[in-house]
Amino acid sequence: MRATILSLTRRAVLAALLLAVAASLASAQVDPLPSWNSGGARVAIIDFVARVIREGGPDFVPGEDRIGVFDNDGTLRSEQPAYFQAAFAFDQIRALAKDHPEWNDKQPRKAMLEGDMKSLAASGEKGLLEIVAATLAGMNVSDFNALVADRIKAAHHPRLDRPYSDLVFRPLLELRASPRANGFSPFIVSGGGEFTRAWAPDIYGIPPEQIIGSSGKTEFRLDGDKPEIAKLPAVEFVADGPGKPVGINRFMGRRPVFADGNSDGDLQMLPWARLNSGLRFGLIVHHADAERAWAYDRNSSVGRLDKGLDEAPRRG
Amino acid sequence: MRATILSLTRRAVLAALLLAVAASLASAQVDPLPSWNSGGARVAIIDFVARVIREGGPDFVPGEDRIGVFDNDGTLRSEQPAYFQAAFAFDQIRALAKDHPEWNDKQPRKAMLEGDMKSLAASGEKGLLEIVAATLAGMNVSDFNALVADRIKAAHHPRLDRPYSDLVFRPLLELRASPRANGFSPFIVSGGGEFTRAWAPDIYGIPPEQIIGSSGKTEFRLDGDKPEIAKLPAVEFVADGPGKPVGINRFMGRRPVFADGNSDGDLQMLPWARLNSGLRFGLIVHHADAERAWAYDRNSSVGRLDKGLDEAPRRG
Repeated sequence: MRATILSLTRRAVLAALLLAVAASLASAQVDPLPSWNSGGARVAIIDFVARVIREGGPDFVPGEDRIGVFDNDGTLRSEQPAYFQAAFAFDQIRALAKDHPEWNDKQPRKAMLEGDMKSLAASGEKGLLEIVAATLAGMNVSDFNALVADRIKAAHHPRLDRPYSDLVFRPLLELRASPRANGFSPFIVSGGGEFTRAWAPDIYGIPPEQIIGSSGKTEFRLDGDKPEIAKLPAVEFVADGPGKPVGINRFMGRRPVFADGNSDGDLQMLPWARLNSGLRFGLIVHHADAERAWAYDRNSSVGRLDKGLDEAPRRG
Repeated sequence: MRATILSLTRRAVLAALLLAVAASLASAQVDPLPSWNSGGARVAIIDFVARVIREGGPDFVPGEDRIGVFDNDGTLRSEQPAYFQAAFAFDQIRALAKDHPEWNDKQPRKAMLEGDMKSLAASGEKGLLEIVAATLAGMNVSDFNALVADRIKAAHHPRLDRPYSDLVFRPLLELRASPRANGFSPFIVSGGGEFTRAWAPDIYGIPPEQIIGSSGKTEFRLDGDKPEIAKLPAVEFVADGPGKPVGINRFMGRRPVFADGNSDGDLQMLPWARLNSGLRFGLIVHHADAERAWAYDRNSSVGRLDKGLDEAPRRG
């Protein structure tokens, strides 16, 4: 078992590369991680994949058990200055606010209307999900999915001035090219949950059932003979911190062999994958390039990495 | 869009055969449904699969969207005289009952201890799940999975005198042989949920993340440095009736193109798959062979099929 802290820049980012690595090891020629800085993490990932796919070897893992879980926001794509779902919720709240004058005094909606990121961040992932659930209540899930997909295409990031859909860390694009190479199945475990499902499958090349995480409550309804699933104004599940391994168990019913995250919200998911029998791998992405993206760790309002920097060396 | 009621015997059973059908159509020689009675349902399934896999045809469905959902108890295997998870709960309750004299007076535990199947059935799927949740509270999910897998291997069916693991309807065994032929992905949507996950993957050749359904609440715990997920004494979700489409949406985030069930508990799942744009298929299995298995429909205590017999002809 091993884990590594990886300091990285925007180009030399991160993650899932199990698939690209495995595909490349199979062909044995191409560098599977061209956008990574050379160093411990890169070598360790390549070594890990080589061991688990070697049939007859002591660390062999059968194809159907080669499951990797990846945090999304901050790990697979930028989460600064705010989660994309927060930007979506902003739009949604503003559009509805004229009919709800009482929101002007109520946190965290007030913070949203005023663009007060600090107060908003203080409400955490759960607070954000509650706002979203309240503003989307009554909408059918098919309409919700279409709306999010449209917004993400149209929206631009406030600082980087590019569509949000472009702000995916590069190595993930390599993952798309060989989605099930060597039998590795990537799962995204995201606080964004159903948001991520609505826009990410095409961009990452991962089907929605492999994107798991937070969800709002829903209800089956018949509109005449037409069946619909409608969103209710309540949070069902928050996939953050201890909610990540609970969500993995709920959605997958088994433990992954590889986990990758970037913040203290991933600190329960990593050992859940890593501290099991057999060779396992846990990776913490540490963002350190303030120039091209964001450097953030102990004092960040979004994606704080504090305990993780203390615990990672102790846990190897 | 089409749906069919199928009268069947134990050998001429049922279901998922999408995969076997598709594999066979690809080779174009072998009868894909040798254990089916010839007739409307058999012809309709073969026709449906042929259409959705024909590239360029008007009904073509891309590989990644070829998802079929199948009820488990009564559809893929026998649910008579009681759900297998009920038999497991019986054992569990009896083993613990000596420490809980108060159970002797409390329904539905009392019915379990006395073997009173009628009262037990009256408590429904939710009542059963509540008993199970209460008796398993505090157990780690890994221990739960191992325990269920052991029990199902050891247990014998009371009337048919065979291991429960043998009581899988024959055509499902064909499904195991070609699990992803032509890109069809089978999902089991089961009231048994986490029970089914614990014993079915090996028998059906379907990974646990494609077995979705009812669940108990769980909690992440650290036993020293060792992470565990423990079962709590509460039902989280019941995948029956309207809970089936809600569960499909929660676990998969998209709608299937084929659905197969056998009771009124499947009557919301079927139209959720079937009443969508494009060619879709809904199938109701009607058990009619009392001699080799069970015939049951309008008045059965388990797996009642009543409304379904009225609605199926109306809905085509």
